[in-house]
Amino acid sequence: MAEEVQNGAGADNGSKAAAVVFAAVKPWLVVEAPKGNDAVQFYKAAFGAEEVSRVNHPKRKAEQELPLVLSAELKLGSSTIVVSDLTDDDSAPVKSAVTGSVFCLETEDVEAAVAKAVAAGAVSEGEISEGEGACCGGRVGKVMDPYGNVWLICTPSKKCGDVAA
Amino acid sequence: MAEEVQNGAGADNGSKAAAVVFAAVKPWLVVEAPKGNDAVQFYKAAFGAEEVSRVNHPKRKAEQELPLVLSAELKLGSSTIVVSDLTDDDSAPVKSAVTGSVFCLETEDVEAAVAKAVAAGAVSEGEISEGEGACCGGRVGKVMDPYGNVWLICTPSKKCGDVAA
Repeated sequence: MAEEVQNGAGADNGSKAAAVVFAAVKPWLVVEAPKGNDAVQFYKAAFGAEEVSRVNHPKRKAEQELPLVLSAELKLGSSTIVVSDLTDDDSAPVKSAVTGSVFCLETEDVEAAVAKAVAAGAVSEGEISEGEGACCGGRVGKVMDPYGNVWLICTPSKKCGDVAA
Repeated sequence: MAEEVQNGAGADNGSKAAAVVFAAVKPWLVVEAPKGNDAVQFYKAAFGAEEVSRVNHPKRKAEQELPLVLSAELKLGSSTIVVSDLTDDDSAPVKSAVTGSVFCLETEDVEAAVAKAVAAGAVSEGEISEGEGACCGGRVGKVMDPYGNVWLICTPSKKCGDVAA
């Protein structure tokens, strides 16, 4: 079933047929709030991960001592993992319906990449949108593969180089 | 709580205090058998992944048309993902109790890496053993982090360069 989409996206949705190139896969670990910061500290201690950037949740509830982690990027060897507190806020790319891990794929052509994935059998979830605040912070599309895994397809974020307060 | 273990493993379990170095994180996607091969084809079609090696399950039941996938390594950008059929066979590093994704960390010093993770709060699962057949195929330790994620810590496999029949 897959051969016809190997070299291009679906033709009937206005997307470009250019080859889609991904830089890397970033696993996204979503943990029960407010344990996100603990999880970051754990991955540093346990696996020697280095925090390269963090974006905190813009809203802090009165009972929260620390802001929730919208996304923290950790370098682990040549890989990057992202850690987030689980939140049902609309600004989060990962909603409360998802527990577990999400894979982030960066590419310059989000539309073509989503179209190619959908042509191959993935289900697109929601519209392609601007990802406010999260590391996956440019244009973001989301697809669920036939095996229940969530893949965020996004442009590389300018914010990834910043370490937020 | 984590600072004291940043630069070495626990001291009372015979492990070396050498720095633990990981090459990269490999997300391991475990899918309901026998959909492993379908999943590999999907990731090729949807995301342009390239299959670099495959190890089939050594036992094939009479009703199975194809052997189950013990582990297939796919290159996706600069990352590697691993796809497996979910099986409860003892030779599989990922047992049926686990559904979802597992993160594979490769290092030359599995004992020190497991000890460091445990000192930081992970729970070691089972003994460090030889990983027969799977891509994570040298010595393999398994830990669960405090957030429910499973990490396989293993030596790089010699088998990863082979494409098994």
